[in-house]
Amino acid sequence: MPMPSKLQVGTGELRVTPAFSVGLEGYQGAPLAQAVERFLGNVTRRTGLFIGVDPAAADKSTLVIYTEHAGSAVQELGEDESYALNVTAAGAKLSAANPLGILRGLQTFLQLIQLTPAGWVVNAVQIEDAPRFPWRGLMIDVSRHFIQMDTLKRNVDAMEAVKLNVLHLHLSDDQGFRLQNKEFPKLTESGSDGQFYTQAEMRELVEYAGERGIRVVPEFDMPGHSTAWFVGYPELSSGPGPYAIERRWGIFDPAMDPTREETYKFLDKFIGEMAAFFPDHYFHIGGDEVNGKQWDANPKIQEFKREHKLKSNEELQAYFTQRVEKLVRKHHKTMVGWDEILVPGMPEEIVIQSWRGQDSLAKAAQQGYRGLLSSGYYLDAMAPAGKYYAVDPMSNADAALTPEQQKRILGGEAAAWAEFISDENNESRIWPRAAAIAERLWSPQEMRDPESMYARLAGVNQELEQLGLRQRSNMQVMLGRMAGNDDIPALRILAEVVEPVSITIREKEAESAGGIQTSDIALNRLVDAVEPESEMAREFSVAVNQLVSSNFQDAQAEAYIRSSLIRWRDNDAALQPVLQASYLPQEAVPVSKNLNALAVSGLQALDYVEKKQVAPESWRAQQSALVQNAAKPTADLSLAIAPAIQKLIDAGASAK
Amino acid sequence: MPMPSKLQVGTGELRVTPAFSVGLEGYQGAPLAQAVERFLGNVTRRTGLFIGVDPAAADKSTLVIYTEHAGSAVQELGEDESYALNVTAAGAKLSAANPLGILRGLQTFLQLIQLTPAGWVVNAVQIEDAPRFPWRGLMIDVSRHFIQMDTLKRNVDAMEAVKLNVLHLHLSDDQGFRLQNKEFPKLTESGSDGQFYTQAEMRELVEYAGERGIRVVPEFDMPGHSTAWFVGYPELSSGPGPYAIERRWGIFDPAMDPTREETYKFLDKFIGEMAAFFPDHYFHIGGDEVNGKQWDANPKIQEFKREHKLKSNEELQAYFTQRVEKLVRKHHKTMVGWDEILVPGMPEEIVIQSWRGQDSLAKAAQQGYRGLLSSGYYLDAMAPAGKYYAVDPMSNADAALTPEQQKRILGGEAAAWAEFISDENNESRIWPRAAAIAERLWSPQEMRDPESMYARLAGVNQELEQLGLRQRSNMQVMLGRMAGNDDIPALRILAEVVEPVSITIREKEAESAGGIQTSDIALNRLVDAVEPESEMAREFSVAVNQLVSSNFQDAQAEAYIRSSLIRWRDNDAALQPVLQASYLPQEAVPVSKNLNALAVSGLQALDYVEKKQVAPESWRAQQSALVQNAAKPTADLSLAIAPAIQKLIDAGASAK
Repeated sequence: MPMPSKLQVGTGELRVTPAFSVGLEGYQGAPLAQAVERFLGNVTRRTGLFIGVDPAAADKSTLVIYTEHAGSAVQELGEDESYALNVTAAGAKLSAANPLGILRGLQTFLQLIQLTPAGWVVNAVQIEDAPRFPWRGLMIDVSRHFIQMDTLKRNVDAMEAVKLNVLHLHLSDDQGFRLQNKEFPKLTESGSDGQFYTQAEMRELVEYAGERGIRVVPEFDMPGHSTAWFVGYPELSSGPGPYAIERRWGIFDPAMDPTREETYKFLDKFIGEMAAFFPDHYFHIGGDEVNGKQWDANPKIQEFKREHKLKSNEELQAYFTQRVEKLVRKHHKTMVGWDEILVPGMPEEIVIQSWRGQDSLAKAAQQGYRGLLSSGYYLDAMAPAGKYYAVDPMSNADAALTPEQQKRILGGEAAAWAEFISDENNESRIWPRAAAIAERLWSPQEMRDPESMYARLAGVNQELEQLGLRQRSNMQVMLGRMAGNDDIPALRILAEVVEPVSITIREKEAESAGGIQTSDIALNRLVDAVEPESEMAREFSVAVNQLVSSNFQDAQAEAYIRSSLIRWRDNDAALQPVLQASYLPQEAVPVSKNLNALAVSGLQALDYVEKKQVAPESWRAQQSALVQNAAKPTADLSLAIAPAIQKLIDAGASAK
Repeated sequence: MPMPSKLQVGTGELRVTPAFSVGLEGYQGAPLAQAVERFLGNVTRRTGLFIGVDPAAADKSTLVIYTEHAGSAVQELGEDESYALNVTAAGAKLSAANPLGILRGLQTFLQLIQLTPAGWVVNAVQIEDAPRFPWRGLMIDVSRHFIQMDTLKRNVDAMEAVKLNVLHLHLSDDQGFRLQNKEFPKLTESGSDGQFYTQAEMRELVEYAGERGIRVVPEFDMPGHSTAWFVGYPELSSGPGPYAIERRWGIFDPAMDPTREETYKFLDKFIGEMAAFFPDHYFHIGGDEVNGKQWDANPKIQEFKREHKLKSNEELQAYFTQRVEKLVRKHHKTMVGWDEILVPGMPEEIVIQSWRGQDSLAKAAQQGYRGLLSSGYYLDAMAPAGKYYAVDPMSNADAALTPEQQKRILGGEAAAWAEFISDENNESRIWPRAAAIAERLWSPQEMRDPESMYARLAGVNQELEQLGLRQRSNMQVMLGRMAGNDDIPALRILAEVVEPVSITIREKEAESAGGIQTSDIALNRLVDAVEPESEMAREFSVAVNQLVSSNFQDAQAEAYIRSSLIRWRDNDAALQPVLQASYLPQEAVPVSKNLNALAVSGLQALDYVEKKQVAPESWRAQQSALVQNAAKPTADLSLAIAPAIQKLIDAGASAK
């Protein structure tokens, strides 16, 4: 995963033993040698075999790598990532134009290693592969909650495994400025609560990503979402100040003053330093969600608008964006920004990242602009992998685009906004679901069977843990914290069938409870620990569908469903003492009771069907009400098995 | 854990909220500020609360830290580690003479944070604490299998948590030379299979450990256990060469030539570089297990012995050790070595690390030498935590020692020899069992109740996972690899009741199967994944003892035992398809069957008791034979519940 564009299964299998070796042909440079060494380490991780890392002669190697030529000094957008991989029982050959293609092919090889009764093997196969889109990104918001460097590196490891190639860091927002700036040290000294990356740390990350064929694109959001800049440099803002780091979530009034020349002098120096620091050719300036209130309240800005015949705040922002674009260009970078930056007069080089959707993107493409889709790829929306998988950057408008215009759709980016993501659950909020987006952006458009995707996603999930990711082990740690000890099987059973509600609901619930969500509030609740998508509930739902469509003849499905229901029914008794013993899991008391009630309903329904009885309508009404109640968000959790239980109830109340 | 030397419980509790803060009084230096920042990060890890890291005024802080003065520039053996911690409902105060004591006290505070129905609290308490021994170490063998830097750092984190203060790295042996040397680059170029630490990496580790109050003592084993040196520098050896890195385990012939002046010139330069590199005052030269064969076979060496009137190889090694000790002293370090280095004429400064035992240590102390105990602390022996806990550095001979002599017993070191330890299972082979040794070395001698230790050990195990250790999550990864997917509950049930056999048995088994264990053989089997001590079996055994001693009246114990037995009985049916599907877990087929048989026996025994019947003697004989069979090592695993099952069988066959 992602599925290669062309794949032909051969006969026989290549054995992977401790004598496995890799030899290089064609171009051989330091990046390749390093890639091979890392690859051999990963083969060891995957198999547990101790594979020697000494280089081997090409003609005696298990895997021969042929590389035509070196890659660009700085990885380019659209640089060739294609490769061909040919595995036979006698050996394997991986060929690519440059080291970048080799990196991609090595990940494919790694995924092909399988454990069989005879040992570790790779089945014979012929693969020709190339990405559908050249920009396949993951955006991580490190501003709203600070994310540790080690966590970012683990994300990079995972990105490489699924062939994503852009790490987009949202480095500043109202809630924090996260990268040291030497010209303007107060950006982090005053604007980060002490939580920021030094340039030395960031340089290491950029190198780390570069070795893995991943570009790092920095984003500094302006002119809005910029409160954290103003804590140290209030003169940049359009209001009187002083400012403090914002603790709430939302869109806030502070915005840079687009009318003062000092603003552009500041940004010239700032962008200059950052443009020199980040090697990538693209530079993201955000540009989203300016509410204009500070501009309206400032007479000098009003005066400026009149003078310059700027009729609206949108036009004022357009003026700002055009000035900033010139600064970005002056420092030899290409500007990227959210939808709002696309204003008349923008040069065609810029890249639009769309939170508005495919139509917005297509419209931009028709006007000659390149774009990226992020709408539909917000991982913090907590949608299931299948939903992200179904979102295609060209799904609506591609028919209307000429081939040349279609080329302007560069790809997309999964986005992990961090209102409810901490360093601790960052990985579980991103992985494995981002792998579904990675496949959407790499594999051919026709590949869209969610069942096949889910089957492979489980394998990726396991592979990522082998790489050291903590998307699941941190859930264990968080559940252990809640329980106060390690005796958590009952808590885990509950955790496996609930899903976090969407952020919108979570915020509404907090408001209606009279509270307000801020960045100070701990993310240590059950909703923060559980996986965004319940695999257990998905499997259960598949089994219920099978059972119903088999007219209740599928004995295996029934046995699985019944044993699941019994486990859930009995879990509440074991779990209640744990929930009630400490304040963290207490809120889940009704959730556990609801799970018990749903399971009892489901078992009754099965009994009706088995006895070939039709349940009375009153029973159906009562149970359905119970399902509806259980389906309501409680403790910001939803019981993901509720729809499948409703199906069982409906079947129990139907004529057989 | 380790238990403080004096602890008095108070009334009330201190709440730990996001407003928790730390203020400094008295001496304030960079090491303290850094320690506090790390501590606050750990409070966040433990609680999930976002604790601000900004420094607070001492009079407004939740926790006030008073430090008398700075610590030594380089941490000294015996440097004051004592501290006093006073927690009331109103606030907490931690005092110590120096930052080292503060580090120890902060770990105590961290462990005291508890989750209650009212939130996170620390119960009021007054603690005065100081270590019993000044040298509390962990030796990690990185030669026989290479251990990654990140893994070493996680070990350091764990060591800090349980107040160990010496990381002893066994950096060279027959199987590999693991630290870059600039004067002699071939030591790693030829002697490490490319698996070694650069000096830059090691410097970072030494700093990392230093910040946590942990000294790093390097060991370079000589004159034996030194094959890896000779691959690049055969002229150092007593034999003709050439040499290759040793792949087998054991004691080998190659040894340095103690008769050539060039040997000492080499070692002078080598020790000089390493002594300057490592800040610690102690330098370990190994010195163990020279079989003398190369010396006997070399006529020049024979000649030298005659000339110098050296009557035995022991005397020849004594000559070598005396020469090396002078070199170590010349470079301003104090020599440490295994028992063998204690030979007549050695200066009293040296430190003896004893693999021979307490008597050897006491004897050395009587002769004026300081010593460390490692005998009885070999973690790779796979003994239960309780066994290590019972080993006291002074258990036998302390009565015979004067107080002054007793002071020469500096403490001890847990040792993780790496014949069967890879980077992947390093942490599970060390933790949590090393914490029992840590308590033995820190807490008062009278503290020796294993039940209390085990209860607290479970908490430490959980705390270590919060710190990021992988002692348990890596087991999940390894089981997942065996099963080929994540569906491993049945495999986990088996894994939780088996224990690895001792290394001795494992090597014998391999030999009797006609094989030989080498460093190339993968450590990816069930025996490598499972925990050294089965907590499940221990709990089961406790319950069986309770049930039997209650004359089968303890209903709760019986319910627990019965449900465990049913789970184990039924597991085999679910597990067999998984075991048979791939070659890695195949060997566990009979182990799973034995578990089923034991469970059936146990259930039958319970039934006899319940029905107040006496099982026939033939049944008892049959079942006992079955237990004996199941208790035999299979796939290098032993079923840890076997003895408890035998108890049930005996009870089933006894008159009621």
